[in-house]
Amino acid sequence: MHPSSWKQVEQIIDRALAEDLSFGDVTTEALISPEQQGRAAIIAGEEGVLAGVEVAKEVFLRVDPSLRFEALFQDAAKVRKGDVVAVIKGKAGSILKGERVALNFLTRLSGIASETARYVEATKGLKVWITDTRKTTPGIRPLEKYAVRVGGGKNHRQHLGDGILIKDNHLAAFRSLGLGIKEAIQRARQSSTLKVEVEVESVGEGEEALEAGADALLLDNMAIEDMRQVVELAKGRALIEASGGITLDNVRQVAESGVDLISVGALTHSVKALDLSLELEA
Amino acid sequence: MHPSSWKQVEQIIDRALAEDLSFGDVTTEALISPEQQGRAAIIAGEEGVLAGVEVAKEVFLRVDPSLRFEALFQDAAKVRKGDVVAVIKGKAGSILKGERVALNFLTRLSGIASETARYVEATKGLKVWITDTRKTTPGIRPLEKYAVRVGGGKNHRQHLGDGILIKDNHLAAFRSLGLGIKEAIQRARQSSTLKVEVEVESVGEGEEALEAGADALLLDNMAIEDMRQVVELAKGRALIEASGGITLDNVRQVAESGVDLISVGALTHSVKALDLSLELEA
Amino acid sequence: MHPSSWKQVEQIIDRALAEDLSFGDVTTEALISPEQQGRAAIIAGEEGVLAGVEVAKEVFLRVDPSLRFEALFQDAAKVRKGDVVAVIKGKAGSILKGERVALNFLTRLSGIASETARYVEATKGLKVWITDTRKTTPGIRPLEKYAVRVGGGKNHRQHLGDGILIKDNHLAAFRSLGLGIKEAIQRARQSSTLKVEVEVESVGEGEEALEAGADALLLDNMAIEDMRQVVELAKGRALIEASGGITLDNVRQVAESGVDLISVGALTHSVKALDLSLELEA
Amino acid sequence: MHPSSWKQVEQIIDRALAEDLSFGDVTTEALISPEQQGRAAIIAGEEGVLAGVEVAKEVFLRVDPSLRFEALFQDAAKVRKGDVVAVIKGKAGSILKGERVALNFLTRLSGIASETARYVEATKGLKVWITDTRKTTPGIRPLEKYAVRVGGGKNHRQHLGDGILIKDNHLAAFRSLGLGIKEAIQRARQSSTLKVEVEVESVGEGEEALEAGADALLLDNMAIEDMRQVVELAKGRALIEASGGITLDNVRQVAESGVDLISVGALTHSVKALDLSLELEA
Amino acid sequence: MHPSSWKQVEQIIDRALAEDLSFGDVTTEALISPEQQGRAAIIAGEEGVLAGVEVAKEVFLRVDPSLRFEALFQDAAKVRKGDVVAVIKGKAGSILKGERVALNFLTRLSGIASETARYVEATKGLKVWITDTRKTTPGIRPLEKYAVRVGGGKNHRQHLGDGILIKDNHLAAFRSLGLGIKEAIQRARQSSTLKVEVEVESVGEGEEALEAGADALLLDNMAIEDMRQVVELAKGRALIEASGGITLDNVRQVAESGVDLISVGALTHSVKALDLSLELEA
Amino acid sequence: MHPSSWKQVEQIIDRALAEDLSFGDVTTEALISPEQQGRAAIIAGEEGVLAGVEVAKEVFLRVDPSLRFEALFQDAAKVRKGDVVAVIKGKAGSILKGERVALNFLTRLSGIASETARYVEATKGLKVWITDTRKTTPGIRPLEKYAVRVGGGKNHRQHLGDGILIKDNHLAAFRSLGLGIKEAIQRARQSSTLKVEVEVESVGEGEEALEAGADALLLDNMAIEDMRQVVELAKGRALIEASGGITLDNVRQVAESGVDLISVGALTHSVKALDLSLELEA
Repeated sequence: MHPSSWKQVEQIIDRALAEDLSFGDVTTEALISPEQQGRAAIIAGEEGVLAGVEVAKEVFLRVDPSLRFEALFQDAAKVRKGDVVAVIKGKAGSILKGERVALNFLTRLSGIASETARYVEATKGLKVWITDTRKTTPGIRPLEKYAVRVGGGKNHRQHLGDGILIKDNHLAAFRSLGLGIKEAIQRARQSSTLKVEVEVESVGEGEEALEAGADALLLDNMAIEDMRQVVELAKGRALIEASGGITLDNVRQVAESGVDLISVGALTHSVKALDLSLELEA
Repeated sequence: MHPSSWKQVEQIIDRALAEDLSFGDVTTEALISPEQQGRAAIIAGEEGVLAGVEVAKEVFLRVDPSLRFEALFQDAAKVRKGDVVAVIKGKAGSILKGERVALNFLTRLSGIASETARYVEATKGLKVWITDTRKTTPGIRPLEKYAVRVGGGKNHRQHLGDGILIKDNHLAAFRSLGLGIKEAIQRARQSSTLKVEVEVESVGEGEEALEAGADALLLDNMAIEDMRQVVELAKGRALIEASGGITLDNVRQVAESGVDLISVGALTHSVKALDLSLELEA
Repeated sequence: MHPSSWKQVEQIIDRALAEDLSFGDVTTEALISPEQQGRAAIIAGEEGVLAGVEVAKEVFLRVDPSLRFEALFQDAAKVRKGDVVAVIKGKAGSILKGERVALNFLTRLSGIASETARYVEATKGLKVWITDTRKTTPGIRPLEKYAVRVGGGKNHRQHLGDGILIKDNHLAAFRSLGLGIKEAIQRARQSSTLKVEVEVESVGEGEEALEAGADALLLDNMAIEDMRQVVELAKGRALIEASGGITLDNVRQVAESGVDLISVGALTHSVKALDLSLELEA
Repeated sequence: MHPSSWKQVEQIIDRALAEDLSFGDVTTEALISPEQQGRAAIIAGEEGVLAGVEVAKEVFLRVDPSLRFEALFQDAAKVRKGDVVAVIKGKAGSILKGERVALNFLTRLSGIASETARYVEATKGLKVWITDTRKTTPGIRPLEKYAVRVGGGKNHRQHLGDGILIKDNHLAAFRSLGLGIKEAIQRARQSSTLKVEVEVESVGEGEEALEAGADALLLDNMAIEDMRQVVELAKGRALIEASGGITLDNVRQVAESGVDLISVGALTHSVKALDLSLELEA
Repeated sequence: MHPSSWKQVEQIIDRALAEDLSFGDVTTEALISPEQQGRAAIIAGEEGVLAGVEVAKEVFLRVDPSLRFEALFQDAAKVRKGDVVAVIKGKAGSILKGERVALNFLTRLSGIASETARYVEATKGLKVWITDTRKTTPGIRPLEKYAVRVGGGKNHRQHLGDGILIKDNHLAAFRSLGLGIKEAIQRARQSSTLKVEVEVESVGEGEEALEAGADALLLDNMAIEDMRQVVELAKGRALIEASGGITLDNVRQVAESGVDLISVGALTHSVKALDLSLELEA
Repeated sequence: MHPSSWKQVEQIIDRALAEDLSFGDVTTEALISPEQQGRAAIIAGEEGVLAGVEVAKEVFLRVDPSLRFEALFQDAAKVRKGDVVAVIKGKAGSILKGERVALNFLTRLSGIASETARYVEATKGLKVWITDTRKTTPGIRPLEKYAVRVGGGKNHRQHLGDGILIKDNHLAAFRSLGLGIKEAIQRARQSSTLKVEVEVESVGEGEEALEAGADALLLDNMAIEDMRQVVELAKGRALIEASGGITLDNVRQVAESGVDLISVGALTHSVKALDLSLELEA
């Protein structure tokens, strides 16, 4: 399991290192001799699913290619409090310089993977995909979407160019011209070969969209009973996605309505970092 | 109130727009005529403190310089559910293209400012500063630290080069050479004119550091009674900072110990986005 | 009609200007006084369809924002030999500095649009889309794909991430594991919600792919009679794309087979620049 | 034979890979296991001169440094239909991810080298240089000029700063001030130590330029008999360059006029890609 | 008079501002209200020739586009102690943020122009050009070469690609193959149409080079009497350049030998900044 | 001893190489076969302190990773005329391509280190630090500040964000509001935890600043007797820095006043390059 375009990841890492190290590490340079060797462990402070181990490794190697980073767990592994996630050996000063940036990636991505895994677990046994949204942190979307995959989720659109999703705001603009869902779907279909998904707010709109040939429907904040009706109407002709107000408490109930996808913005817009720390033995 | 180096902010915005719009917005381009005008409102879905209004404005202007963005609230303002934060007028398609990226900034930064404001409120009347840490999201540190200031907090170190902070891991490396806190402080002082802060784990270590002339002490996860003793020992000779395990529940108690600074990693490492959405009238 | 992400276009223009002007324009600087005004016309030397007029304009404005560029024809317009495409007024030296780079964009993009328009014309009256491929010039793909749209064509995949296209080489790798088209389609469908297209080499393979639920079939270098059979088998369940060896001579015949899309690599891999030149009156 | 500044080439490659792979390769990632090994051959579909083999190699190595690329032919080699140009071994998925970008470079550069070689061949035995122009594809000029050298041609100016070439448009601006070719050459000579070339439109202008001490003359679209006269007048005092309307049909005749250089814009502005494809055996 | 590629200058300025302002200006932000207006003067502390006034202006405008910068002297003007070079009006805080970077450019470039002007003055009345070398400060070569022009000097090669200069080290490598100056010149001539200059160490070598058709000779550290002989031998067939050990004390004597060019590395490798300071009235 | 953020150094080197080699090295490419091996020595032409040996090495390795660079002296070593600083072995052409850029770094940084060392030597035995200022060459500040350290100096502020220094211009702005040194110091202290330094022009101002709790005083162009008084008043409560008009002639006298720091702008704003050259044996 690997982020899909490593080059971008390297650029993201370099920017993060530049934020922290552009003017050196005055503490480490004052106290630690460049020759001093050390050994550090990254330790889990709570239970969770890891994501970003390779990213953390790359952080250390970009700080100092002579460091050795041994991962004891890989991405997607479940760790418990006290587990040693990885061991880093080499120049103590280099380890200290990379510590914060490496943990900033690892704790955040593992937080995303852990939360995603909770949603996946909550819908276990049901044929539904938990997906992310485009509500990601500016600048690190590829990594956050990767973490969702690591946690067992699927990715929704990467960007505004790889899928047509006609949302309420598009329809508002469209309707002001006296046109409706049907015409929107037709026009979308004539513009490209990409799939066409439409946000609908009622069973009636869902029916209209299905008849117009939508490939997928987005049910935003719809009552579960209504979801069930739309699923039935669709009969597999279109993918049905639920979205809006979904939490760990109600996700299983939503899933049981028979929808194909449940997208959860909070997976990436409100991340709780996984507790991981680095301890050095010099 | 403004992020300090706007150039960097522009680069961060451009990267975010590139993530979302490098391949165009196929939906908007298919459905919305380039000429169609619209008017959109950014609306608060819950109470909180705004941060990033100028950033959101810049997002829209970079998507289309002909858009008009009118902020009804400025950064640091408190909004309530239903408040209209800003109104954007101009080409409907341009508004839709910028919507997600603008909100991704605004909801996240406002989330940080709101949480910071809660900590500041919780210590109201006490002479203490709530500060951030370097536990920020890779790539957007300047914005996150700005949001902390907007929320009434202060910034701790920007990076590893603008202040000496001798942490437990530095001391571990240093002690393995048979040297202690005192020697560490002396060596740090000889390397630069920057302030020297030391992490101490007990009242005794605090005393040792004060005698060696530390400018500031970091008390990590120390009992409140011990904090109080260190504050007393310091008698204003050094700044005292508390850190570790601090929550909205215990922050006032910690502050009452007399410490000068309380640093809270969660302000930036575990952000809950403020609920803000965009509604278009075309 | 406009390239979809202008920011990228600006970067492409800046790179082109850097190639030509990083060390100044020694001729112009030696001969032309900075104050001398001029007026230049871009003139068509042959018939064709314009693309890149806004790009050429931007080149001149980035060389010197005080230039005035008046387009007499817009993108998608058909010009004839002798037509004045645009007039540029302002400092003669600035016009001369931008001339070559502006024409390098305009002649190339117009060449693409003109050729695309010929294919579209050749299939006039038939319900088929002429599309490009990923065989574009490294570094200017967005512009080349834009030029195809200007010429009346449609874009196929922008990149390897916005659509699943299982080609012969993928199948070769897949088959070596004892698996076939059917399993490939199933696996692809389980990995994402994107459309799944499969390259097939015979009517039989086409049938297999249709049964496995492919959203589209790519018929590479297939006999026209076979194409017709596949179209019939599909009955609209899947889009049918023809590709390989298609020229202006045979494109109508291919289109008449009933395929939905005809993709033509030569539109971008073997471009003949449209003859356009700049004449200065000082 | 090697592009002169490899660093630039790497940046050009990275941009091309970013165009195609920024959002991963969804097909390959869905179908091909990261461990699956493969072996691919790049095969010539027609006769031509190779250029860009090292570039194609670098593309694959940047996608995956563990790939092994063995070139069976080097740049400047002539290949025939069916020849195996290179073999790539390693992870099948990595080969597939790099395929298109590698071929986009190799087919285009080989197209340029092949066409250049045809012009060189057509003037075989004559003391004349075939040169390119600045009519190159924006963003990849160094590679296109390299391909011309590979095909046996020479490079004309790299950019507007490395040689003075007084063209008709410069003279138009200059003449509007009541000054002529002679004054232009003098002024150019006083501005720098670079060579001074002047475009002339008649034998008379050529004579004037020679007397004013031009280092080279550009004869644009001049009748062959006139070229011959100018060559004679020059008596080796200046280089004579022919340009404009030169094709494979007339290039030998032009060369026989005795000119030193023949510049051909079409070498780079209207490239026909060489037919090369990749076949994978897994 | 203007740097030839302003785009590059903007990038150089942005890098300089990033060095100084990436983490804000903590002093100004603490003390000066964003609304406070001010007026500042840039004042000459000694006599010299200005260069970089437009660059300094751009620095201030990039810090804050609302600043007004009025230049009272332009580049190439001679200023005396106490002269007000420019006045900047607007937000006091913005002026203070830009001060150091603006002066770092202006004092350095003016130092170069001033020293160049001294050399030009020392050779007044003689037909000789004072030129720079490639011994420039890494990263700001275009600006340093511009400052030389402002001071009345001429530019030698911009980079290793715009002129052939066969130096002693090239000849050393070439001679180890049993080849000499003559063969070197011939080979150079066959490689490109650029001028060919050769470094010679004696009158004899000079003669050899002239006979082989060198366009220019570089006399490195040659005795003045020998220079005179080479000048005589050349009879205008080639440009003669003197170099090495040239100071303000001996430059006139060297010039009187009749050489065409005198290149002085110290113009850019050992710059004494011109004394200029900024004074703010708030 | 090593520049603190090597990544930045690599970027600086790449920019310098781009300035010189973006269009190849036409001389070397014409004359030297890619296979020819050579051995070059970097030789000191005068006495001085080296800085930048690793930078020079990196330049050669970035031009050609197959070169071997053996340093015979390291940074901070004192060399004498005739000393061989380093030997480079490998392709002769690669050595020649890197020569100028490598020397441009090495001679300039060694010039800075040498001059710094002279100041340090002149104050030998006294407890004072020689420091640099922000008067550095735009774009290479980290390297210049590194060279100061190599010469035995200390660095003052890296940028405007890592220390508060209230200068005369800040005070001028502040005083126009009817506020004084005392209020400035208080306000600064309330804005951040960074040290607060204030520029004072008289003993009286110094006393006022000390009473207001300044951490450091900057005495600009103050008489030595006054400096002594301020030192006495401070009694170690604050660091005292002297600045302005300091030369090798008076630096010891200034130091004997008891100040803690002496900052010398000329260390970086008026550098005399150390004489170092490269000689090739092929």
